[in-house]
Amino acid sequence: MTGRKDESLTDLSLLGNQDTKYSFDYTPEVLETFDNQHPNRDYYVKFNCPEFTTLCPKTHQPDFGTVYISYIPDEKMVESKSLKLYLFSFRNHGDFHEDSMNIIMNDLIDLMNPRYIEVWGKFTPRGGISIDPYCNYGRPGTKFEKMAEHRMMNHDMYPEKIDNR
Amino acid sequence: MTGRKDESLTDLSLLGNQDTKYSFDYTPEVLETFDNQHPNRDYYVKFNCPEFTTLCPKTHQPDFGTVYISYIPDEKMVESKSLKLYLFSFRNHGDFHEDSMNIIMNDLIDLMNPRYIEVWGKFTPRGGISIDPYCNYGRPGTKFEKMAEHRMMNHDMYPEKIDNR
Amino acid sequence: MTGRKDESLTDLSLLGNQDTKYSFDYTPEVLETFDNQHPNRDYYVKFNCPEFTTLCPKTHQPDFGTVYISYIPDEKMVESKSLKLYLFSFRNHGDFHEDSMNIIMNDLIDLMNPRYIEVWGKFTPRGGISIDPYCNYGRPGTKFEKMAEHRMMNHDMYPEKIDNR
Amino acid sequence: MTGRKDESLTDLSLLGNQDTKYSFDYTPEVLETFDNQHPNRDYYVKFNCPEFTTLCPKTHQPDFGTVYISYIPDEKMVESKSLKLYLFSFRNHGDFHEDSMNIIMNDLIDLMNPRYIEVWGKFTPRGGISIDPYCNYGRPGTKFEKMAEHRMMNHDMYPEKIDNR
Amino acid sequence: MTGRKDESLTDLSLLGNQDTKYSFDYTPEVLETFDNQHPNRDYYVKFNCPEFTTLCPKTHQPDFGTVYISYIPDEKMVESKSLKLYLFSFRNHGDFHEDSMNIIMNDLIDLMNPRYIEVWGKFTPRGGISIDPYCNYGRPGTKFEKMAEHRMMNHDMYPEKIDNR
Amino acid sequence: MTGRKDESLTDLSLLGNQDTKYSFDYTPEVLETFDNQHPNRDYYVKFNCPEFTTLCPKTHQPDFGTVYISYIPDEKMVESKSLKLYLFSFRNHGDFHEDSMNIIMNDLIDLMNPRYIEVWGKFTPRGGISIDPYCNYGRPGTKFEKMAEHRMMNHDMYPEKIDNR
Amino acid sequence: MTGRKDESLTDLSLLGNQDTKYSFDYTPEVLETFDNQHPNRDYYVKFNCPEFTTLCPKTHQPDFGTVYISYIPDEKMVESKSLKLYLFSFRNHGDFHEDSMNIIMNDLIDLMNPRYIEVWGKFTPRGGISIDPYCNYGRPGTKFEKMAEHRMMNHDMYPEKIDNR
Amino acid sequence: MTGRKDESLTDLSLLGNQDTKYSFDYTPEVLETFDNQHPNRDYYVKFNCPEFTTLCPKTHQPDFGTVYISYIPDEKMVESKSLKLYLFSFRNHGDFHEDSMNIIMNDLIDLMNPRYIEVWGKFTPRGGISIDPYCNYGRPGTKFEKMAEHRMMNHDMYPEKIDNR
Amino acid sequence: MTGRKDESLTDLSLLGNQDTKYSFDYTPEVLETFDNQHPNRDYYVKFNCPEFTTLCPKTHQPDFGTVYISYIPDEKMVESKSLKLYLFSFRNHGDFHEDSMNIIMNDLIDLMNPRYIEVWGKFTPRGGISIDPYCNYGRPGTKFEKMAEHRMMNHDMYPEKIDNR
Amino acid sequence: MTGRKDESLTDLSLLGNQDTKYSFDYTPEVLETFDNQHPNRDYYVKFNCPEFTTLCPKTHQPDFGTVYISYIPDEKMVESKSLKLYLFSFRNHGDFHEDSMNIIMNDLIDLMNPRYIEVWGKFTPRGGISIDPYCNYGRPGTKFEKMAEHRMMNHDMYPEKIDNR
Ligand SMILES: [Ca+2]
Ligand SMILES: [Ca+2]
Ligand SMILES: [Ca+2]
Ligand SMILES: [Ca+2]
Ligand SMILES: [Ca+2]
Ligand SMILES: [Ca+2]
Ligand SMILES: [Ca+2]
Ligand SMILES: [Ca+2]
Ligand SMILES: [Ca+2]
Ligand SMILES: [Ca+2]
Ligand SMILES: [Ca+2]
Ligand SMILES: [Ca+2]
Ligand SMILES: [Ca+2]
Ligand SMILES: [Ca+2]
Ligand SMILES: [Ca+2]
Ligand SMILES: [Ca+2]
Repeated sequence: MTGRKDESLTDLSLLGNQDTKYSFDYTPEVLETFDNQHPNRDYYVKFNCPEFTTLCPKTHQPDFGTVYISYIPDEKMVESKSLKLYLFSFRNHGDFHEDSMNIIMNDLIDLMNPRYIEVWGKFTPRGGISIDPYCNYGRPGTKFEKMAEHRMMNHDMYPEKIDNR
Repeated sequence: MTGRKDESLTDLSLLGNQDTKYSFDYTPEVLETFDNQHPNRDYYVKFNCPEFTTLCPKTHQPDFGTVYISYIPDEKMVESKSLKLYLFSFRNHGDFHEDSMNIIMNDLIDLMNPRYIEVWGKFTPRGGISIDPYCNYGRPGTKFEKMAEHRMMNHDMYPEKIDNR
Repeated sequence: MTGRKDESLTDLSLLGNQDTKYSFDYTPEVLETFDNQHPNRDYYVKFNCPEFTTLCPKTHQPDFGTVYISYIPDEKMVESKSLKLYLFSFRNHGDFHEDSMNIIMNDLIDLMNPRYIEVWGKFTPRGGISIDPYCNYGRPGTKFEKMAEHRMMNHDMYPEKIDNR
Repeated sequence: MTGRKDESLTDLSLLGNQDTKYSFDYTPEVLETFDNQHPNRDYYVKFNCPEFTTLCPKTHQPDFGTVYISYIPDEKMVESKSLKLYLFSFRNHGDFHEDSMNIIMNDLIDLMNPRYIEVWGKFTPRGGISIDPYCNYGRPGTKFEKMAEHRMMNHDMYPEKIDNR
Repeated sequence: MTGRKDESLTDLSLLGNQDTKYSFDYTPEVLETFDNQHPNRDYYVKFNCPEFTTLCPKTHQPDFGTVYISYIPDEKMVESKSLKLYLFSFRNHGDFHEDSMNIIMNDLIDLMNPRYIEVWGKFTPRGGISIDPYCNYGRPGTKFEKMAEHRMMNHDMYPEKIDNR
Repeated sequence: MTGRKDESLTDLSLLGNQDTKYSFDYTPEVLETFDNQHPNRDYYVKFNCPEFTTLCPKTHQPDFGTVYISYIPDEKMVESKSLKLYLFSFRNHGDFHEDSMNIIMNDLIDLMNPRYIEVWGKFTPRGGISIDPYCNYGRPGTKFEKMAEHRMMNHDMYPEKIDNR
Repeated sequence: MTGRKDESLTDLSLLGNQDTKYSFDYTPEVLETFDNQHPNRDYYVKFNCPEFTTLCPKTHQPDFGTVYISYIPDEKMVESKSLKLYLFSFRNHGDFHEDSMNIIMNDLIDLMNPRYIEVWGKFTPRGGISIDPYCNYGRPGTKFEKMAEHRMMNHDMYPEKIDNR
Repeated sequence: MTGRKDESLTDLSLLGNQDTKYSFDYTPEVLETFDNQHPNRDYYVKFNCPEFTTLCPKTHQPDFGTVYISYIPDEKMVESKSLKLYLFSFRNHGDFHEDSMNIIMNDLIDLMNPRYIEVWGKFTPRGGISIDPYCNYGRPGTKFEKMAEHRMMNHDMYPEKIDNR
Repeated sequence: MTGRKDESLTDLSLLGNQDTKYSFDYTPEVLETFDNQHPNRDYYVKFNCPEFTTLCPKTHQPDFGTVYISYIPDEKMVESKSLKLYLFSFRNHGDFHEDSMNIIMNDLIDLMNPRYIEVWGKFTPRGGISIDPYCNYGRPGTKFEKMAEHRMMNHDMYPEKIDNR
Repeated sequence: MTGRKDESLTDLSLLGNQDTKYSFDYTPEVLETFDNQHPNRDYYVKFNCPEFTTLCPKTHQPDFGTVYISYIPDEKMVESKSLKLYLFSFRNHGDFHEDSMNIIMNDLIDLMNPRYIEVWGKFTPRGGISIDPYCNYGRPGTKFEKMAEHRMMNHDMYPEKIDNR
């Protein structure tokens, strides 16, 4: 089999590991990275995460949403199984949707120091209304800071049709 | 449970309160706010509100629509249950769709003093025609004023397909 | 203009009447009928009513749904504008969804004495769950009674996909 | 070119005729037929007609709908251009939707004496409600009479989702 | 009932009027306006009109389409029932689709003197091809003139999927 | 307000109660009922529950699915808020999907003794494959037992398109 | 590679053959078969053929449609590349849609002597109307003859939505 | 955690095992079962498998499809990870689509001895035509044999729309 | 009938002409124009052409696609029936998809000398891959040249989902 | 037959060749080109490739995705059958999705030296999360380099809805 060699993957403790522990309390330290093999190029990686659930901080009832994470890597890239475990760790965590999305983005910035990143949550309704927060970040002092402003300015001009069914 | 603490939520009188009163006359004073925990960052919060209904000012028959509200908070953020009650209070209120959307935006500007906000209503047809008003606002004298102009200029260039079925 | 003559429509007080009163309290007496011109044939008439709203009997908050009514007329047929006014009259009425659908069907049976009728309500979610009641009726002692049983036995074997968005 | 020969088509006065007259008053006599070349076999022909428009008999405003016609031919088959002209002739005709569908079916029975036929109209909403009549017919005393009953009993058990958008 | 008062609506002769006359010959004078209550703000009003029908100027056969009209009002706003009657008046009018869309826009500019307006028609196929004209206008010498150029430059870069079914 | 009276609702301890406790361990005793007001009629009630989550019994990782529950009540009907709490109680419960669906149906039979009931779960994929169990029940010795057999025989003959996106 | 051996495929002259000739005149003799390896079992094979085109027998203009062919094999099965060539051979053939579908079914019955077969054509509109013929066949004197009657009786009770866009 | 206990799962060698071997040659012996805990009830389990790929037996080029498997268990149930590995083992296997579906069903009958089972493959097009085989089985001499005949007779009467895009 | 007068249409030899000849060899000279009645305004005309078919230049097998043509007229506009005949003339023409789209655009530039034009073809798959070429043109030395560059730079940033079904 | 002549196609060894070898190990040398006949014009060619499959470099299990490739040619254009064989050669190749997309783009740049190119992969989920990498390239020192930056800055601002079903 051609392609990525096992030796370049030795830092990954979770991918393919059968003894995975699932923590359901907020656990940012579970996140792991691997090296970007194309650091001389700007490119996007997007994660579609439709199985996100957390708790309402006041009523403690479960909330459900889909999280879309998109970033341009610098030297480090988040490994997807560790990202899955990280998102699972919000399962018994209580926060407003607006806060969760900002926290996820903050943790991924700390982990990878990406050139650019954005996080968009789309939640199911409570009381007939659903909430969809969106935040982004471009590394300060670079063209990616302008990119973040540009994308904020043009964000979501075609809101998807929502009829609660 | 990690996350937002109850003490930061004591100003919220409606969320999780079983004695909620439902007013069906226009009641902007029902709106409540909580503090933005990420004020150093521009980010969007969108509310999808498909259960909006009001009355025709002339014939008094009910109208139905979906309202999409999207804003960039400054220091205050509208609490979603109070927003629900506010929107319910249009139930027996009579106004043209164009007026309702402007009034909702005005009330939310008064409440939160947001950096940016937009409100888009999409109504069901009367006489074979449906009406979809859209208004927006950027805080005067800031980059958000330009953002509002930019988004107005590029608004809805792909009108959704409507066949009244 | 060929077609139905005005003289056959003189019993209709609401269709085309500009002085329509909109009652928002349960008012079954607003319903009107006209004569079936094809009584020697069994055929269906379906009403699609996506603008139905009522109140929760316990919390008094508004609920929203779509009501599908389908019937085989005998001698009388319900006039659609009076049906609209009748459905509007649930606007400030409090009942469980299961009850509303049965009440609508009972009222239409009383009004028209149809050969067959069915009523299906599909509501927006509360607490992440939505409720869809379905009832039907065939005139006792006729083949339509068997028809009702047959349709109940084969009802909704392909529930529509619901994701609350 | 292989296939149907021109000589078998000489009865068709409308297909490919550039001097077509468009009558907008009800004109059943415009309908034409050609011979069924497979009379020993039961098979269906369906016409999808999304450009049907007529007038309200009371308010005289235009109504719009899609008509689906499906039949099993016996010896005669309706030619599709003549069907188009026939449907156009309802353009300034005033009738309830329930009547129009029955009239169309009656005229096609008179024209073709089919083994089986059904007509389903689906109209755009007026006052938030849309009406969809359905009628059918099987030749009396044949298995097609039972077929009509069977299809009436199982008609439309999955009403399409209608949200007036 | 709170909201628009009847006294501000006295100029509207058609809304809620049961004696509506339906002209099926091109009648631009039926259009009526009411006052914009938010003239200090740029905002959009969109009309979705899926029941537009006209005649081919050469063959005189009916054509069918959906018209999307979107504008930023100045002092006057078109009342929607009068718009409905105006569009109905194309019913027996013969013009190419390209001409109809320009004529509608010209008439609405004459009526309202809007800051910005655009009209997009999407028609059903003839001979396997369908035609969708789009025109727009920004008041000369204002920023809206540039807006019109900008929107023309970026128009319809994602043509909707059309398969004639 | 007309409709169901509060006195008929006094047995409901959860609906509208702000002190709701959310248990995330399997808790069938949270289920509550109210009286069927139309016991002389067979009719369906369907619950759409797209926010169901449980744990894999072997790997303990979360699973996600939508549960559709449909039943014909006898004397008792399950209250929807208690159903929500019951479904939430699977959150930290470990079972195969096939088992969960059977357990839910068993618990609802014990609670309500319905005439007929069916439960269909549709889960998100693991390893590229998703699992959708379906079970049903008709009261033994009644026509509903035959109904269950009939519906099992005709179940899901049009599997929905699944592409894991 | 496990699976079907080349020796069992020696009768197939077209599959994988680079010297394929494309005839655009009706050529039923191009059809080829291979042996059914599961003749003791009834099972379906369906062909989806969205690239069917033929000519109008009167105006000679091209028509376009999708053909769905579904059958239960007996001893012979039609090879799909030969089926493609056969369908291509209608390209310059002139016939009514009703005739083409019957001819295709007749040719496949002659070729394979199947237990059961059905052919459904769905064509693009001409003059605003589209035509969808459907025919089927069960081997006379077997249970498949009844199957054909049963499927004819239950054919297409949910006509797909057609709006010519 | 409540639910299935580990001790009842000890026969499963693959679920949660990190040393999984992926065979890409036909390997039916990889299939494993666990015990049905509800053997006194008829219920369905469906597997949606959109990642199926095999090779053409004559040209050896890859083919792609989605396989839907649905069965009523008796005492044994197939474990889903072993099913995944089994389906992967067709990756370098060459067979006609009609054969693959029959083979999969035969292997699952041998493994589980189910009361009822059906397998439906839907493949991507080659030469503009796609092939969808369907087979089923009911245990001989039981009501499930009749069930298989009944479902064969009513199979796929609404073929999904295929346009190769 | 108001609207375009016959005298302005005398140059059109094909529209409404029953003696239309259908050439299936590349015939650009069939194209006809009429005068633009709104030359002082920039506006778009789009043709949706889902019935395009041509031959592979190497294997000579038929290919199928949809062609979207959009342009801003100057003085001349292409008449749609002549466009239909022109596109039909590719029926027996052999070229790569990339070449056909460029040829169509070149011919329409020669015919109309438009201010701006673009042509987008979307074809059905061969060998599991489909090809979609897009070309555009703005009149050199005008703002439309920049428009073409701008639209090329922003072309198709949201490729439609293609799954070959 | 008019169009591309065979002599201009003599460099193509694969198109229409029945002796095609299918390599399932990474084989970039299989790629072939033909000459761009419109080199004086910038235009796009897009390939939709929904049948892409590769292996996980760590667990060796198969992954599945759709690859969208879009480019502006200079002198050379990639022939689509050779592209198909090239993509098939990833079948037994192990790499992260992020690497595969970059490798495909690098190989096509080496092959064609295009003015602009972009590659977007959209994969099915593993562990509930799916990954979609996107990379692009504009020839350095030309306007296409800016084009690449512009498209990166505006990439995917409307992520498609993903629910893993
Ligand atoms: Ca929805
Ligand atoms: Ca949904
Ligand atoms: Ca939804
Ligand atoms: Ca909807
Ligand atoms: Ca619609
Ligand atoms: Ca709709
Ligand atoms: Ca379509
Ligand atoms: Ca999907
Ligand atoms: Ca439509
Ligand atoms: Ca359509
Ligand atoms: Ca379409
Ligand atoms: Ca499709
Ligand atoms: Ca598709
Ligand atoms: Ca498709
Ligand atoms: Ca989906
Ligand atoms: Ca999906």
